[in-house]
Amino acid sequence: MPRIEFFFDCSSPWTYLAFHRIQPLAAEFGTPIEWKPILVGGVFNAVNQSVYQSRDNPVPAKVAYTEKDLQDWARHTGLRIIWKPTVFPVNSVKAMRGCLVAGEKGATVLFARAVFEAYWGDDQDISQDEVLGKICERVGIDPKFFSARINEPAIKDQLRANTEELIRRGGFGSPTIFIGDDMYFGNDRLPLVRDALAKNQGRAL
Amino acid sequence: MPRIEFFFDCSSPWTYLAFHRIQPLAAEFGTPIEWKPILVGGVFNAVNQSVYQSRDNPVPAKVAYTEKDLQDWARHTGLRIIWKPTVFPVNSVKAMRGCLVAGEKGATVLFARAVFEAYWGDDQDISQDEVLGKICERVGIDPKFFSARINEPAIKDQLRANTEELIRRGGFGSPTIFIGDDMYFGNDRLPLVRDALAKNQGRAL
Repeated sequence: MPRIEFFFDCSSPWTYLAFHRIQPLAAEFGTPIEWKPILVGGVFNAVNQSVYQSRDNPVPAKVAYTEKDLQDWARHTGLRIIWKPTVFPVNSVKAMRGCLVAGEKGATVLFARAVFEAYWGDDQDISQDEVLGKICERVGIDPKFFSARINEPAIKDQLRANTEELIRRGGFGSPTIFIGDDMYFGNDRLPLVRDALAKNQGRAL
Repeated sequence: MPRIEFFFDCSSPWTYLAFHRIQPLAAEFGTPIEWKPILVGGVFNAVNQSVYQSRDNPVPAKVAYTEKDLQDWARHTGLRIIWKPTVFPVNSVKAMRGCLVAGEKGATVLFARAVFEAYWGDDQDISQDEVLGKICERVGIDPKFFSARINEPAIKDQLRANTEELIRRGGFGSPTIFIGDDMYFGNDRLPLVRDALAKNQGRAL
């Protein structure tokens, strides 16, 4: 059965947009989403150091446009996105391990959405235990259980495995979406994801 | 009256996609398009040398994806796009001056489409007089007149002026679309251009 694999790291605003927009798209085609939390910094370090080069040598015209562009997309999508958050880039390792812990309770979407909202909408530092604790309370996960569970090898290993899987399959950033072997990178590729879902549905008929 | 300003250079495949897709979008909203030929190399030299840095230090995973992505977009748009053309990057200065010459006869779209098709669809070297001559014949422009006219100061100056205008207004590549002061960069931003056109129409009612 075709499914959408969604590799994501909550530290990217474009990922927040795609996370939000992929859900009605998947529902429209009745295609399930497999959420795959990753650490995008691990991807950059391994295969895409150009991200750091761009940060170190910003092109002023592009920087100015990117800020405007992000607000255009936020409006288009109906989300509030602050640029930039006080803490940026943020260390998202606990938050992304947290997505896996939430996933064990079937609450990936609930938890990830709360993390995106806290960081991008409310300018909270999602690397902090206190911030993550409040998110846990909001989505019905015991903060003490959470703090212990994110430090267990099974969870750490899964985050590493997801990140390595993305690299192995040709990914270089977040969000990366797979439909079978077909890879799509970025929020702005959802029209192509739609094409792929429509094509799959046509085949199934 | 609102209009769409479309700054473009035929040497970019993403520009070919946007050139094709902007036309039905503009027609849907009854908004005229003002075609503004530029020399994108002039823009890169002035404000966006990161393009050259990326070409010199390609990220293999991104390169592989870009090829696949371009074919996805070509299929989405219903165009044939070869990657890469035998001559790439190509010197498009005569072709872009040619768009201005064609514009004097109200034939910008006809001529530009023929240039895009020759270069991206048929792998022809659009820097060559012979190739441009055949395009002229196809769209009803006298090749001798064309060859003389593209070397006249008025045409050369206009191409330079368009390029400088784009730089002055914050552009850094092709295609760049303006609706009033609102700038949009790239084929993948047409959903946002649609938002802007819809908003303008709402205001006019």
